[in-house]
Amino acid sequence: MSEQKLRISFIGTGVMGGPMAGHLVKAGHDLTVYNRTRAKADAWVRDYGGAVAATPAEAAKDADVVLSCVGNDDDLAQVTLGRDGAFKAMAKGALFIDHTTVSARIARQLSVEAEGLGLLSVDAPVSGGESGAQAGTLSAMCGGTKAAFDAAEPIMRAYAARITHIGGPGAGQTTKMVNQIAIAGVVEGLSEALRFAQASKLDTDKVFEAVSGGAAASWQMLNRWGTMAKDEFDFGFAVDWMRKDLGLALDEARVNGATLPVASLVDQFYAEVQKAGGGRKDTSSLVTRLPK
Amino acid sequence: MSEQKLRISFIGTGVMGGPMAGHLVKAGHDLTVYNRTRAKADAWVRDYGGAVAATPAEAAKDADVVLSCVGNDDDLAQVTLGRDGAFKAMAKGALFIDHTTVSARIARQLSVEAEGLGLLSVDAPVSGGESGAQAGTLSAMCGGTKAAFDAAEPIMRAYAARITHIGGPGAGQTTKMVNQIAIAGVVEGLSEALRFAQASKLDTDKVFEAVSGGAAASWQMLNRWGTMAKDEFDFGFAVDWMRKDLGLALDEARVNGATLPVASLVDQFYAEVQKAGGGRKDTSSLVTRLPK
Amino acid sequence: MSEQKLRISFIGTGVMGGPMAGHLVKAGHDLTVYNRTRAKADAWVRDYGGAVAATPAEAAKDADVVLSCVGNDDDLAQVTLGRDGAFKAMAKGALFIDHTTVSARIARQLSVEAEGLGLLSVDAPVSGGESGAQAGTLSAMCGGTKAAFDAAEPIMRAYAARITHIGGPGAGQTTKMVNQIAIAGVVEGLSEALRFAQASKLDTDKVFEAVSGGAAASWQMLNRWGTMAKDEFDFGFAVDWMRKDLGLALDEARVNGATLPVASLVDQFYAEVQKAGGGRKDTSSLVTRLPK
Amino acid sequence: MSEQKLRISFIGTGVMGGPMAGHLVKAGHDLTVYNRTRAKADAWVRDYGGAVAATPAEAAKDADVVLSCVGNDDDLAQVTLGRDGAFKAMAKGALFIDHTTVSARIARQLSVEAEGLGLLSVDAPVSGGESGAQAGTLSAMCGGTKAAFDAAEPIMRAYAARITHIGGPGAGQTTKMVNQIAIAGVVEGLSEALRFAQASKLDTDKVFEAVSGGAAASWQMLNRWGTMAKDEFDFGFAVDWMRKDLGLALDEARVNGATLPVASLVDQFYAEVQKAGGGRKDTSSLVTRLPK
Ligand SMILES: NC(=O)C1=CN([C@@H]2O[C@H](COP(=O)(O)OP(=O)(O)OC[C@H]3O[C@@H](n4cnc5c(N)ncnc54)[C@H](OP(=O)(O)O)[C@@H]3O)[C@@H](O)[C@H]2O)C=CC1
Ligand SMILES: NC(=O)C1=CN([C@@H]2O[C@H](COP(=O)(O)OP(=O)(O)OC[C@H]3O[C@@H](n4cnc5c(N)ncnc54)[C@H](OP(=O)(O)O)[C@@H]3O)[C@@H](O)[C@H]2O)C=CC1
Ligand SMILES: NC(=O)C1=CN([C@@H]2O[C@H](COP(=O)(O)OP(=O)(O)OC[C@H]3O[C@@H](n4cnc5c(N)ncnc54)[C@H](OP(=O)(O)O)[C@@H]3O)[C@@H](O)[C@H]2O)C=CC1
Repeated sequence: MSEQKLRISFIGTGVMGGPMAGHLVKAGHDLTVYNRTRAKADAWVRDYGGAVAATPAEAAKDADVVLSCVGNDDDLAQVTLGRDGAFKAMAKGALFIDHTTVSARIARQLSVEAEGLGLLSVDAPVSGGESGAQAGTLSAMCGGTKAAFDAAEPIMRAYAARITHIGGPGAGQTTKMVNQIAIAGVVEGLSEALRFAQASKLDTDKVFEAVSGGAAASWQMLNRWGTMAKDEFDFGFAVDWMRKDLGLALDEARVNGATLPVASLVDQFYAEVQKAGGGRKDTSSLVTRLPK
Repeated sequence: MSEQKLRISFIGTGVMGGPMAGHLVKAGHDLTVYNRTRAKADAWVRDYGGAVAATPAEAAKDADVVLSCVGNDDDLAQVTLGRDGAFKAMAKGALFIDHTTVSARIARQLSVEAEGLGLLSVDAPVSGGESGAQAGTLSAMCGGTKAAFDAAEPIMRAYAARITHIGGPGAGQTTKMVNQIAIAGVVEGLSEALRFAQASKLDTDKVFEAVSGGAAASWQMLNRWGTMAKDEFDFGFAVDWMRKDLGLALDEARVNGATLPVASLVDQFYAEVQKAGGGRKDTSSLVTRLPK
Repeated sequence: MSEQKLRISFIGTGVMGGPMAGHLVKAGHDLTVYNRTRAKADAWVRDYGGAVAATPAEAAKDADVVLSCVGNDDDLAQVTLGRDGAFKAMAKGALFIDHTTVSARIARQLSVEAEGLGLLSVDAPVSGGESGAQAGTLSAMCGGTKAAFDAAEPIMRAYAARITHIGGPGAGQTTKMVNQIAIAGVVEGLSEALRFAQASKLDTDKVFEAVSGGAAASWQMLNRWGTMAKDEFDFGFAVDWMRKDLGLALDEARVNGATLPVASLVDQFYAEVQKAGGGRKDTSSLVTRLPK
Repeated sequence: MSEQKLRISFIGTGVMGGPMAGHLVKAGHDLTVYNRTRAKADAWVRDYGGAVAATPAEAAKDADVVLSCVGNDDDLAQVTLGRDGAFKAMAKGALFIDHTTVSARIARQLSVEAEGLGLLSVDAPVSGGESGAQAGTLSAMCGGTKAAFDAAEPIMRAYAARITHIGGPGAGQTTKMVNQIAIAGVVEGLSEALRFAQASKLDTDKVFEAVSGGAAASWQMLNRWGTMAKDEFDFGFAVDWMRKDLGLALDEARVNGATLPVASLVDQFYAEVQKAGGGRKDTSSLVTRLPK
């Protein structure tokens, strides 16, 4: 399938979706894009070529594959099942891939709807951030049937370096939650460690040298310790998104019975960061709520 | 200095100190060891050669260098400043290196005492665990004067792969605390993430595949996710030691003013693990207090 | 109004609603009740007289006042705005009082719908539990216009001892959240205090005598310390309800920007209690997750 | 004994000890006082009469009863067992009562020392604050033998309204810890509740009216909600003392095995308050770290 030229619709040409759709063009596919704010779709077409559709339904008509990367559950429901949503316009046998980070519940619901309509569907939230989207090196965590995954995998190769089929519908979303839960603990631990080092008047570069090779090491330490020490947060994965994602995990935990004491606490700490105006800052700005 | 054959005393031939002292023999030095439980010192000598002393003072007499790796503050005070302690027997200009994880306060106190006696001293807690001690690949985080560090560094090369001079007396200990604080957050985040994955009935191997390459990755994830998923905890760094270390960090934070919400919470969670009989288990057994 | 005989419909004759509706009969009103499980409504009528309706709409027709005390947001939406919901059947100028603990959002939404239909409406969640409902000594926290509150107040006198008009629509619900947030902290503090006393082998009766008159005192201490010490939890306000309520507060906090670190943590601790089978136990069973 | 005129020494005429000693004068006893800062003892004598001693030992000589209310463990050790400490000067059969809030360990140690010297001793930390000391309405939580308690009880009647014998040596101190642990949860819950009410734009007086009579009620709510709502904190029990006390409880928990997740977290939150300069403010200032 990867060598075929496909008719692909991409819904949501934002920070993540824009470059992902761009990679699909580079992979040789025919793209039609739809975005709520039309201007963004127009700009995308100026950059990459392809067509703009006026509604998700219009975009989805005649498409072999429809992808979405929108904001949250409501947004996703609207562009798929809403009045001008994509689902009713998609041809039997077409493939739907969603890259939005949403609840497992809506992922499962869309899978059921898709099945009823004879569509293949995959929930495939990504990690790797804006830079990963631009570089085409995202990780995609996928839920869906084997058939759906097999169909989706070669397409996602255009922008994802690591593509894992975890399990049935919703498994992509719950895996993304696992990811965010782990991050919450890491970043808070790192924040406390850094502030403690500063309170101890230690040279934070030397501390990094000493501790970054062992059992305390983490991607966050390797990539954020230095910027946190310099109070630099204007980049990366936004606190607002993190709160949304932790909210999804906490909601899902109400269903699956898992307990998340520190993730829930960190979620509240992020609320403090938001309140102080840091909603658009990188998640490592969690450190800013700890007094220096 | 590293090429010189030195007279070295090692106090505390336990899990960590034993192999460390062994590496010093292999590096060509003359070793005299002391251990509270004499049998352990005797066994060490059978393995490595060298002499056994009856007291720290006896061991320290005529030594160029005295090292210690005992249990806690009280132990360290006893073997250095106690009635038969090493300090009073050490010759002017001799070097003292402590590898015990203790409070910054006692590290600073020993430095002051050492200075008064004309000794050089370094606080150099290590990380890397039993396996690191055996392989000679420990990390040593060092506090002390430049002169003391410069004298100590070539000796530590025998068993440490990463040796960092962080700052003045106590800086080694506070850096070790930074390390443990970071670990507390990482391990709790990882524990919650794993239990959430299990509650979601995800294949934990596939989840690992999906999330271990990105922003959620950590040494703990790479080295403990698999064993945690299999409920294997009979190895590694013991919960009892971790509680001691977190206790040191929490005490120091009362002095330096840092706030450690999650480290303090995780310390209490470890208390639950201890209460359930897990004091000797690896720190990753933190996950066991989360219901499955 | 309180002396008038009114036609009143009560929707949801459960643990709370049943006795509340009973008090309205005793106050001299004409009651029609509706309950999802018909048998419960029938049993109620055997006890108190009055009529049973087949749907909320049927109950609401010709009623001067419609009250509800159902389970959650979905339930409330169904019995008011649903296909056979009460709202479309109510006469202009009729009064709607909801006693369910629900989100502020649905309370505000119902207020808007009611206004559009020319109805008066009050959100009036209660506290005081089953025993308060039976004794007619509940506290009602009310949101709505002054006109709506003034109309509702004399009716609620039948079963509420403390009736407070807090503010506009939704203010009753957010006040109930305030109540539950405060309780979460109190009960966790009390739980830790009790376990600490037990771990210290103190006589818990004597400890109670010593501390229950001062700054540590609380309703929970005065009413639950003794039962907690005896591991008695088969009564009172259920953990499942508490989690629902804390969930409402945590959701509302995402909107109003408040931060709830300990309420969120306690909510997770309650998840552990649920997981261990304690969902129907009193909230004081929070103590059971702390090792003895 | 209460009707007898006794020779009493009081060590530590600070905020608490000063008025307590004053009540003993009013009860008809002969007082000798000692205080580290002599001026405070002199001022006390100007107010109440009696004599000033130059050292604890001097004060203790010929005394029937020695009482202390100093700062912490080190202070207490110094005034009892130190070079000029009271113990060596006390006559066989004399009674020692300590009102300082200290560790159970030192309380037990003093009891052992006292027994060796043929003294009776009681650990009797108090609650009720400065106003309780002045009004003579403190609560005293007592540990010690029955004989010691029976001797101490009539003396304490001069300034304590509630005097409870909990158990053997140290039981007074561990009971005080129980008290502080409970308070930590209550005050944090109250703080979150208040900020939530404010974030919801509720009239906090009305909220108080609605919730202060039920299951959320507490001494803290009844006495602090109003002042917290007005950001008034210049009175009451200082954050610095609270941190000391929580520190004692957390240390004791390491020994008795209790787990204190929220007490430990609140202790860290108080560290934030201290860092922001609030160390001398009332404990209810915990609310100030939550963003408004
Ligand atoms: N284990 C690990 O993975 C790591 C440990 N550490 C730190 O290293 C230190 C040592 O740990 P570890 O080697 O595992 O512990 P062990 O208990 O195995 O070794 C400590 C040794 O010191 C001796 N000792 C203790 N107190 C005294 C005393 N008062 N007088 C004389 N000898 C004494 C003990 O003697 P005896 O035989 O009588 O008990 C024992 O042999 C600790 O501070 C620990 O926190 C740091 C990093 C990793
Ligand atoms: N119990 C307590 O101590 C307190 C409870 N509350 C709150 O009061 C509310 C009611 O609690 P409680 O009385 O204990 O709960 P119950 O479950 O005993 O009662 C709820 C009643 O509402 C009916 N009902 C629920 N959903 C619907 C629906 N969709 N359509 C028709 N009828 C419906 C139920 O019918 P069915 O018989 O079919 O289940 C049931 O009889 C909850 O919001 C709770 O949080 C507040 C304070 C204290
Ligand atoms: N304040 C309160 O509301 C409450 C306090 N407590 C506890 O009571 C104790 C006393 O508190 P408070 O009265 O407020 O504190 P203060 O600091 O006002 O009083 C302590 C007194 O003890 C003296 N003192 C301290 N250390 C020594 C020493 N080493 N040798 C001789 N004298 C010494 C001090 O002398 P100097 O004048 O030189 O400082 C001071 O006068 C504390 O443990 C506190 O936790 C308990 C309940 C309530």
